[in-house]
Amino acid sequence: MKTQKEVDEFIENGHTTYLPNVTIDCVIFGYYQRSLKILLAKWKELNGYSLPGGFVGRTEPLSIAANRILKERTSLDKVFLQQFYTFGDSEFRRENHRYSFLPKDNWLRERTLSIGYYALVDFSRAMVEEDILTEKYVWQDIGKIPELLFDHNEMLESAQHHMRINLYHQPIGYNLLERKFTLPEIQSLYETILGKKLDRRNFPKKLLSLGLIKDTNKVRSIGRHRSPKLYTFDKRKYDQCIKKGIVLAF
Amino acid sequence: MKTQKEVDEFIENGHTTYLPNVTIDCVIFGYYQRSLKILLAKWKELNGYSLPGGFVGRTEPLSIAANRILKERTSLDKVFLQQFYTFGDSEFRRENHRYSFLPKDNWLRERTLSIGYYALVDFSRAMVEEDILTEKYVWQDIGKIPELLFDHNEMLESAQHHMRINLYHQPIGYNLLERKFTLPEIQSLYETILGKKLDRRNFPKKLLSLGLIKDTNKVRSIGRHRSPKLYTFDKRKYDQCIKKGIVLAF
Repeated sequence: MKTQKEVDEFIENGHTTYLPNVTIDCVIFGYYQRSLKILLAKWKELNGYSLPGGFVGRTEPLSIAANRILKERTSLDKVFLQQFYTFGDSEFRRENHRYSFLPKDNWLRERTLSIGYYALVDFSRAMVEEDILTEKYVWQDIGKIPELLFDHNEMLESAQHHMRINLYHQPIGYNLLERKFTLPEIQSLYETILGKKLDRRNFPKKLLSLGLIKDTNKVRSIGRHRSPKLYTFDKRKYDQCIKKGIVLAF
Repeated sequence: MKTQKEVDEFIENGHTTYLPNVTIDCVIFGYYQRSLKILLAKWKELNGYSLPGGFVGRTEPLSIAANRILKERTSLDKVFLQQFYTFGDSEFRRENHRYSFLPKDNWLRERTLSIGYYALVDFSRAMVEEDILTEKYVWQDIGKIPELLFDHNEMLESAQHHMRINLYHQPIGYNLLERKFTLPEIQSLYETILGKKLDRRNFPKKLLSLGLIKDTNKVRSIGRHRSPKLYTFDKRKYDQCIKKGIVLAF
């Protein structure tokens, strides 16, 4: 929303466009140079940070809504976006105090269940844009998350848990690594997301035996006697594994 | 609902008690004697079977609603019940034709997103009870599922997919097996759910090395020269593994 008029219209009549009791919140993980960050929005009216989110259109397919909200906030399109959990248990989800300054019968006073999605993006490619309600967006280091508004710390933890589990069943890395990468580079990606060290032998052996990555017969020269081999994803196999699911144990 | 009066009241004023755009549907897997069944409801008014489900109370916590719906349908309490996905993409979820015989402004004519939960129960202990809207409940073999109403075949497939993945990260079996069981018995349980054979050596080795099961130093006599060892769950370890998550690869 760009203008105050748009905001007023949303408050007044938003329920004719959107479902009143359902929101989507996005946990957007940004990977860049071996670190993992989260996109947070700082609100003008509320004193604090939250995950970016939005409402679902009355007849809008849910996954389309999630992609739209992600794109509105980050300009990112066609990224890996995964639904992970729907939140409706915490005190905040049973009774909404977010808009207590609005009249009692306003549609925004109602309780909202929130459907959580997570995305994994190359954060150097995202372009975040403030609107009239947000003071700014920040990419916050995963190790330094402040206390968030609403139940968003719980959401973030849940997203990380689900992303880690999914890592054992769906390949990742495409769009996050250069087209050609070294084994330490892909291993770093997995280690950063899992938050633990992986075996230097088993890890690449597993990816190679599944056919997910393949040797390009090229090397990178990074110094005297240091020219690690370069690998690339087998995209056909990769897409197949995303569709069928895999079982990895490193 | 037991009486026509209750049904009429629900149709007329249900939206004052329940959220209008959200339902819960339960995929209830029943395990018994090495087979896996699903609980289906046959409706009086609609020609076909569906998963059992219900609406969420206006201020009811989501997980409480799921447990309530499960209990109303099966009398089962305190069973393993897990949220797996929220459905809002299919044509049925964008426009609801289920109650097209009701007036246009009736609350039941609105679109519903559905939050899917799955349960894994010993189906010999469930007591299903018909109400005024359901002709009967049946436990249907997982290999012989008919075409279901709405998008419920898609839901069922998704539940099975999620249950299989969870099997690698959460132990199961407590409440599904006798207190003391043989290794073939617990292996059968896992094989039935995964729909594939597991290695006879690696599988028990993994469970034992995690400390999930332990030798009771007893055997079962099932014939001359046939007296397999009996095992039991280490409940403390089991609960720990459910809480912390594990990574299995058999």
